[in-house]
Amino acid sequence: MDSPTPRQIYLDCDPGVDDSLALGYLVASPLVQLVGVGTVFGNCPADAGARNACDWLSVMGASDVPVAAGARKPSHGEYHGGPKHIHGQRGTGAVQLPESGTTPVAGNAAELLVDLARAHSGDLEVVTVGPLTNIAEALAIEPELPHMIKHLTLMGGAALHPGNISPVTEANIGKDPESARIVFGAPWPMTMVGLDVTMSNTFEEEHRQALLASGSTAGRLLAEVLDFYFDFHLDVYGRRCSALHDPLAAIVAAGGIVPALAPMINVDIDDTRGPGRGQTLCALGGLYRGFPAQDGAHCRVALDIGAPVAPHLVDVLTTLP
Amino acid sequence: MDSPTPRQIYLDCDPGVDDSLALGYLVASPLVQLVGVGTVFGNCPADAGARNACDWLSVMGASDVPVAAGARKPSHGEYHGGPKHIHGQRGTGAVQLPESGTTPVAGNAAELLVDLARAHSGDLEVVTVGPLTNIAEALAIEPELPHMIKHLTLMGGAALHPGNISPVTEANIGKDPESARIVFGAPWPMTMVGLDVTMSNTFEEEHRQALLASGSTAGRLLAEVLDFYFDFHLDVYGRRCSALHDPLAAIVAAGGIVPALAPMINVDIDDTRGPGRGQTLCALGGLYRGFPAQDGAHCRVALDIGAPVAPHLVDVLTTLP
Repeated sequence: MDSPTPRQIYLDCDPGVDDSLALGYLVASPLVQLVGVGTVFGNCPADAGARNACDWLSVMGASDVPVAAGARKPSHGEYHGGPKHIHGQRGTGAVQLPESGTTPVAGNAAELLVDLARAHSGDLEVVTVGPLTNIAEALAIEPELPHMIKHLTLMGGAALHPGNISPVTEANIGKDPESARIVFGAPWPMTMVGLDVTMSNTFEEEHRQALLASGSTAGRLLAEVLDFYFDFHLDVYGRRCSALHDPLAAIVAAGGIVPALAPMINVDIDDTRGPGRGQTLCALGGLYRGFPAQDGAHCRVALDIGAPVAPHLVDVLTTLP
Repeated sequence: MDSPTPRQIYLDCDPGVDDSLALGYLVASPLVQLVGVGTVFGNCPADAGARNACDWLSVMGASDVPVAAGARKPSHGEYHGGPKHIHGQRGTGAVQLPESGTTPVAGNAAELLVDLARAHSGDLEVVTVGPLTNIAEALAIEPELPHMIKHLTLMGGAALHPGNISPVTEANIGKDPESARIVFGAPWPMTMVGLDVTMSNTFEEEHRQALLASGSTAGRLLAEVLDFYFDFHLDVYGRRCSALHDPLAAIVAAGGIVPALAPMINVDIDDTRGPGRGQTLCALGGLYRGFPAQDGAHCRVALDIGAPVAPHLVDVLTTLP
């Protein structure tokens, strides 16, 4: 049996602890060829994130993947730095990554995405695990982008689950609702991997120990970075573990796990200055009838993954160098 | 063993099919003494609703309970009539109620509520199953009202469940978000009985047949009115049945069933003109830690009833004349 052609994926990220797990998964998965990485303000500044991405890719044996720094602040408003109590001083927990010899490319992330979309003529897929500023900028550069991209999978939003930066708002969307509105409004096929599934699928100490004990240098480094991230989650879950935000989007995008329930529904973004700012309003009223088809809907919203995530993540990450 | 002193309850409603079930329950329950009924625009106009309330109370053998018509439109905006495809031409499905000889009292609903609160000196409890316009008006008349009312239980809102008039907004709150913001902001102890529990607890054809077959004239009339309401719910559930919106609030207020899960949490109301207008934003971020205490919270949000509702409702309603 022939192997399937790997998916050509551009990753937009703000690494960030869980971003580095997503990056590692996309490098390691045999289902994926990672063809570019852009960074955006968020968990850490865009330039620091690009530095981290270069260093991680080097550790992971993929220093040939181009990295471009992107938006340094949201489309409306300012950026005041990342949550250091969650991701550490540099976005790598309490760990100092070995410095790679590689540097980001000259253009910005939006330009890299557009260039890759043109070069891959309809085959490029996009995974975003940070604010959607770069993607909205890419749409401004190339309005035909939605027809040039095969699929966009994003970590962000919350459909039926509470938010994590307000009662209803998830951080990636909340950090730039205006860009999110543009991206959700563009007519590409999308999958939203939000808090509904990323909070209920956790990475436990046993999984972290499996990474630590593996022969993979990158896997061990990821486990060390997770140590800090686990501390933050003690206040969320009442135990040391972590949510699987960004890696779950990478897994779903790669096809490593196909969500058991992900209806195609209309999603609106609240970009008011009201209390719901940044919410993903998901039209889930059809939940008692198996979610009948909705006119204009082009976004699947993952509501149930239906398979163990952490063991699969460990299996793939431990194949890294 | 002595019977407990019945709770003294004022009901604010817009009858409406499910309102009439709530009214019947509060009349019939031995745990309750219904001391007044106000009506508000919503399922039907406030004056038609007051007429219906008088007629229902007469059928239910409680024509001594005072009824006052209240707000005819929301605090901001206009009222364009009720949803006749849900509640019928008159708010009584396809049924014409026997006309009672009683008429509404002279004052409006907000005045009746304030008068009753003063007369019952701290013992009055409030149940609302319509828009919160009358309650906000009563707060304007008597700013001390939150300290004069023992508890307020409302049918309205949605915490983790989708809305029913928008992806996130429930009808009672959505019809007058400005009044809802005032009511939720007042420092009385409250319980929110929203779509999280009213949609998952249904009244099925077997329960309607039990009402029809009972010796209760009022019970039979309620079952006939429900016939029309069941038709509407076919599109919601894929079968003839009904949600138990208003009666569930009455049952919880009476103490007929104590919800299995109803954490005390902060609730904000979206009164912007944005896509989230009318949403009840519930601070449920503590869901993985058993909902630790929140400063300033004074509203319990029912998330799980944990007991069969419809059989209890049938048991009580069939004791009506």
